[in-house]
Amino acid sequence: MSHELWRVNLQTRSLQREPLPPAWQRLGGRGLIARILLDEVPPSADPLGPANKLILAPGLLGGHLLSSCDRVSVGGKGPLTGTVKEANAGGRTGLALARLGIRALVLEERTGEGWWVLHVSAGGVRFDPADDLIGLGVYETARRLLARYGKKIAAAIIGPAGERRLRAAAIMHLDADGVPGRASARGGVGALMGSKGLKAIVVDPAGGSPPPVADPSALRELRGRYIRALQAHPQTQTYHDYGTAAMVAMCNAFGGLPTRGFSQGQFEGADAIGGEALRALILERGGEGNPSHACMPGCIIRCSNIVPDREGRTLVSPLEYETIALMGSNLGLGDLDTVAQLNWHANDIGVDTIEIGAALGVAARGGVWTFGDGKAALRLMEEIQQGTPLGRILASGAAYTGQAFGVLQVPAVKGQAIPAYDPRAIKGTGVTYATSPQGADHTAGLTIRAKIDHLKPEGQAAVSRRAQVAMAGYDTLGICIFAGFGISTDPGVIPALLNAIYGWGVGDDILTRLGEETLRLERAYNRRVGFGPADDRVPEWMTQEPLPPHNSVFDVPSSDLDAIFADLERG
Amino acid sequence: MSHELWRVNLQTRSLQREPLPPAWQRLGGRGLIARILLDEVPPSADPLGPANKLILAPGLLGGHLLSSCDRVSVGGKGPLTGTVKEANAGGRTGLALARLGIRALVLEERTGEGWWVLHVSAGGVRFDPADDLIGLGVYETARRLLARYGKKIAAAIIGPAGERRLRAAAIMHLDADGVPGRASARGGVGALMGSKGLKAIVVDPAGGSPPPVADPSALRELRGRYIRALQAHPQTQTYHDYGTAAMVAMCNAFGGLPTRGFSQGQFEGADAIGGEALRALILERGGEGNPSHACMPGCIIRCSNIVPDREGRTLVSPLEYETIALMGSNLGLGDLDTVAQLNWHANDIGVDTIEIGAALGVAARGGVWTFGDGKAALRLMEEIQQGTPLGRILASGAAYTGQAFGVLQVPAVKGQAIPAYDPRAIKGTGVTYATSPQGADHTAGLTIRAKIDHLKPEGQAAVSRRAQVAMAGYDTLGICIFAGFGISTDPGVIPALLNAIYGWGVGDDILTRLGEETLRLERAYNRRVGFGPADDRVPEWMTQEPLPPHNSVFDVPSSDLDAIFADLERG
Repeated sequence: MSHELWRVNLQTRSLQREPLPPAWQRLGGRGLIARILLDEVPPSADPLGPANKLILAPGLLGGHLLSSCDRVSVGGKGPLTGTVKEANAGGRTGLALARLGIRALVLEERTGEGWWVLHVSAGGVRFDPADDLIGLGVYETARRLLARYGKKIAAAIIGPAGERRLRAAAIMHLDADGVPGRASARGGVGALMGSKGLKAIVVDPAGGSPPPVADPSALRELRGRYIRALQAHPQTQTYHDYGTAAMVAMCNAFGGLPTRGFSQGQFEGADAIGGEALRALILERGGEGNPSHACMPGCIIRCSNIVPDREGRTLVSPLEYETIALMGSNLGLGDLDTVAQLNWHANDIGVDTIEIGAALGVAARGGVWTFGDGKAALRLMEEIQQGTPLGRILASGAAYTGQAFGVLQVPAVKGQAIPAYDPRAIKGTGVTYATSPQGADHTAGLTIRAKIDHLKPEGQAAVSRRAQVAMAGYDTLGICIFAGFGISTDPGVIPALLNAIYGWGVGDDILTRLGEETLRLERAYNRRVGFGPADDRVPEWMTQEPLPPHNSVFDVPSSDLDAIFADLERG
Repeated sequence: MSHELWRVNLQTRSLQREPLPPAWQRLGGRGLIARILLDEVPPSADPLGPANKLILAPGLLGGHLLSSCDRVSVGGKGPLTGTVKEANAGGRTGLALARLGIRALVLEERTGEGWWVLHVSAGGVRFDPADDLIGLGVYETARRLLARYGKKIAAAIIGPAGERRLRAAAIMHLDADGVPGRASARGGVGALMGSKGLKAIVVDPAGGSPPPVADPSALRELRGRYIRALQAHPQTQTYHDYGTAAMVAMCNAFGGLPTRGFSQGQFEGADAIGGEALRALILERGGEGNPSHACMPGCIIRCSNIVPDREGRTLVSPLEYETIALMGSNLGLGDLDTVAQLNWHANDIGVDTIEIGAALGVAARGGVWTFGDGKAALRLMEEIQQGTPLGRILASGAAYTGQAFGVLQVPAVKGQAIPAYDPRAIKGTGVTYATSPQGADHTAGLTIRAKIDHLKPEGQAAVSRRAQVAMAGYDTLGICIFAGFGISTDPGVIPALLNAIYGWGVGDDILTRLGEETLRLERAYNRRVGFGPADDRVPEWMTQEPLPPHNSVFDVPSSDLDAIFADLERG
C-alpha cells in the first residue's frame, strides 16, 4: 500500500483510487487541502453545494506512530468563512487513514436523499444507511458505530448541528480511547459534512500498515532522537501536568482573557477555572478522571484530560483552555462543572465550543440571557440541541448571532469567532486573526509566548508571521502544535524524519518552506474567492473600544497587516 | 439657497453646511452616493458601525416638480450586502430635500444612547427625542410625526426591524398623501438608519424653494416637451391603469414568475393576483380605493394604487408587482387580500417585501411552514413584528434564513434576495442580478421587454449592460424608471433639461455617461471591499436545478459576466 488519493463520488457512490499526483506529493494535511481546493473547487462554489469537496488528509509525517504526528486535517471551502478551511484534530482518524495508504480522502458531489455512513477500509468504501443514527448525539452515535464496526475503528462523526448544516458545526473524531472528544471544530466543517449526506465516516485500519519508508534504519534511530527532543523542553511536562488550561492564568495576567463577551480582559474568577484548579479537581475526584490523557495513540505529551463529576464519572474529555475561556470567563461563568457540562453538550450536538461560546457571549450582550447564569447557558445548549429558531441562530455562530440581535461587538474575523486571546491585549495574535487565511484562529499562529510587549503595536506583524508560517508547516506535517516546543530544541529532527521516510534531501528550512507554500496556496485561493486587504482586519470595534484593564485598542497599522505576506503573493 | 452638502455629525449633534465640492457637482442621487462612499467610507467599515454614513440625495433633476423626477436615493455601505448600496424611492423626501437646497444629507458617526428624530428645515437640523416612538410601527409613527410637525413635512421612518438593525429593514417615506408607503427597501438601509440612532428623519420644506435654474425660460418650455414625451408612449397609460401588477401575466407567460420558493416559473393562480384582477378589485370595492395613484407630487404616470378592503377602507398602498410575486406566487398564495395584508405588515414593521417574501419562501422550503397557508404567513409576520428569534431570522433576509434552516436553494446574489424575475427564464435580468454592484436588484436593469429570446444565453450580457447603464443614469438623475418609456420617445429632453437647469452643455450621451460613471464608482468601491468576479454570479443551484415549465438553468457563460464592465474598470 502506498501514497494514494481516494476520490469518492458520493452521487454515484463510486471510489477512484489514484496515485497522488507528482505536484501534490510534497504536501500533506493542511497544505494538501489548499492545493486541492485551488486546483479543483471553483472559487464561487457554494460551500454547502455539490461543487465543494470535503477532504480528510493526514500530514506528511502521519502513519508512523511518531508522538503527536498523527493529526488529521479536515477541510474544504469553509461554510462559516467562505475561505479556504482546514480544521485539524487529534484522535485516531489521521493514523487510520495513513495506515490505509490514504494521503487524501476527497469526497465529491453529494448523496441524494437519506443519510449514510461512509465505511473506508483496505477493501475500499461502502455506503451503509444511517437512518437509525439521524438525530442522535455524537456520543450515542459513537457508541453504536463502535458496536457495529468494532472497537478499533476510527470515526469522524457529526451531530444534529451538522445534520442541520449549521455553520458552527464541528466534526468529532474518536480519541485513543474511542471517545468522540477530538474536534475538527472550526469553520463549519461539520456543516460541510452534513451537506454531503454523511453522518459518519468510519475508517477501519485493519489490514493496513505504516506507509513505506525509504530508509527504515534511519527512521528507527530518529524515533529516539525525536522523543528526546520533545522531552528536552520543560513545556512538554507542563502540558502533561496541566494541559492547555495553564493558559488561563497566563492570559489573565496579560489582561487578554476574554471575559463577558470580550468586554474585559481579566476575569475575577480566573483562578477557579485555571490549570491548577482543574488539575486539583481531577485528582481530588479521582474515579475516571485523568489529568494527563493522550488524545492520539502514541502521544507522550498527553495534554488532554478526563474531567470527572463528583461521583468520579466522566463529565467530559477533554476540557481545554479555549473552551474554558470562551464558555467560562467569556460567559461570566467561574465554575468548572458548568463549563464542563456546556462542553459536553457542545460535543454531543457537534458544535465548535469557541464559536458557540462567542455566540453565547454576543447573545448576552444582546439581552438574550445574563452573563454568569449557568443554568440559562445550559438551557441555551438545549435550544441548540433541539434546533429551535434561537438554537439555530446560536449554532450559526457569533457573527450570525450578532446580526440577529443587533450586537455590533462581535468578536469574529472573516465570519469566524475570535478564540481566547483578546487581540487588543495580545496584539501579535490579533495580527494572526486578521491575516490568517483561515479567519480568526488560535491554531494559526499564537504569539503569547513571544518575547515582545504584547500591548505595543510595533513588531507584532513579524512575530505573527513567524508563528503563522511555523503553524502552517506543522499542520502540513500533521504535527501537534504542542510538539513544537520540544522540536525547537532540535529543529533538524524534522528534515531528518522527512528524508528518512521519503528519501528526500530537504534542509533545515523545510518547516518554513512548507509553511510558506501552504500560506501562499491558501491566500491564492482566498483571493480568487474575493478576499482582499479589507478582509484582513480585526473587527472595527476592537480598534475603537478599549479593553480593560489596560484600556488598549488594537492599533497595529493596517499597512503592517497588508504587508505581512506580500512577498508570498509576489512569489 | 443653492447646491449644498449638509453633514450632520450625530455624535456631536452638529451640522456643517458646505458647498458641494466641484468634483461632486455633476453627480446626484445614486452616483453621488457612490462617489461619497468611495471618498469617505473605508472599505473595511462595519456597515452598522460609526464609520459608515447614511446618505440621502435627490437626483440631478430633483426639486423642480418635473413629473417622476423627484425620487430620493438613500444609501451607504449596505448592511445586507456589504457592497455599495443605494435604494431609491418616491414620496416626498426627494423634493423636500431639494427644496432646501440639499444635494446630499450625509449622516456621520452615531448618536449615543437613546433614539432621535432628526428634524431638517431651512433653519438647520434639530434632534428631538424619539422615546415615545420607539417600538411603534411605521404607520403610527407617521401619524404622530404629521401631528407633531405639520401635514406638509416629508419623513423617512424606520419600524421595529430597523430599530433592531435587522438586515431586511427598509426606510419608509411619506407619499404625496402623507402615507408612509414608499420604501427605500433594499439592502438593509433601515438597519443602517437604526444603527445611527434615528427613528425618523423629518424634512420640513417650509421656506425652501426650487433649486436655482440657469435658464428659467428654457426650463419653462421644456416642461411641456417633457410631459408630451411621457404621454407619447403607450406604456405610460398602461402603468396608469394597471400599475406594475400588469407584469404578473407577462412574467408568468415567460415562465419566470417566482413560484413556491423559486421552484417553479408559472403559478396556477397568476390570474387571481394579476393586474386585471387588482384593478377590478379596486374599482369594484371603491371607497378609499384608487387604481391610479401618484406616489410623488406632480407625477402624471400614477402607477401607484390604493387597495381597499371589502368595506372600502385602505388595506395597503401601494400594492406592486414585486410584492405580489414575492409574497404571492412565491408563497403559493393566490389571494390579493392576503398579499395586501402581508404587504401592510411589512410596511408597518419596516421591512423589504422582496427580501421577506424570499425569506418566507426559503423558510417554507426548510419546513417552517407550508406554501399556500396564508394564515401561517401572517403569523410569521407577527413573529417578525414581535422580534422573536424566528422573526429575527426572517427579518435578516433570505440568505440568512437559508443558513438557519439548511436550505441551499436561496435566491440571492451578494446576500440580497432575487426579485420577481427568475434568472433561469429571463436570463438578461439574471445577468443584471449577477453583475450589478447592488446585488440582485430588479431596479438595476430589467430586460424583460428587450427583444431577445429570454431563454437563450447568447447576447444577454449586452442587453443587461444597456439596461444597467440606463438605470444607473436615471437613478443619478432622480428619475423614476417608469418615465424611461416616455423619455425614449424624445431622448434629447434629458440633456436639454440639464443644460437649462445647470447651464451645462451636455450632449445626447449624458444618460450613458452618468450611468457608466456611476457603475464605475460603485464597482470601484466594491472592489476595495473585496468583491470580485466570483461574487458576480447567480446562485450556483440556479445553474444546476432546472426551472419548470421551460426546464432551463441559468447558463450565461461566466466569461460574459466577467467581461460586462471590464472596460469601465480599465477606464
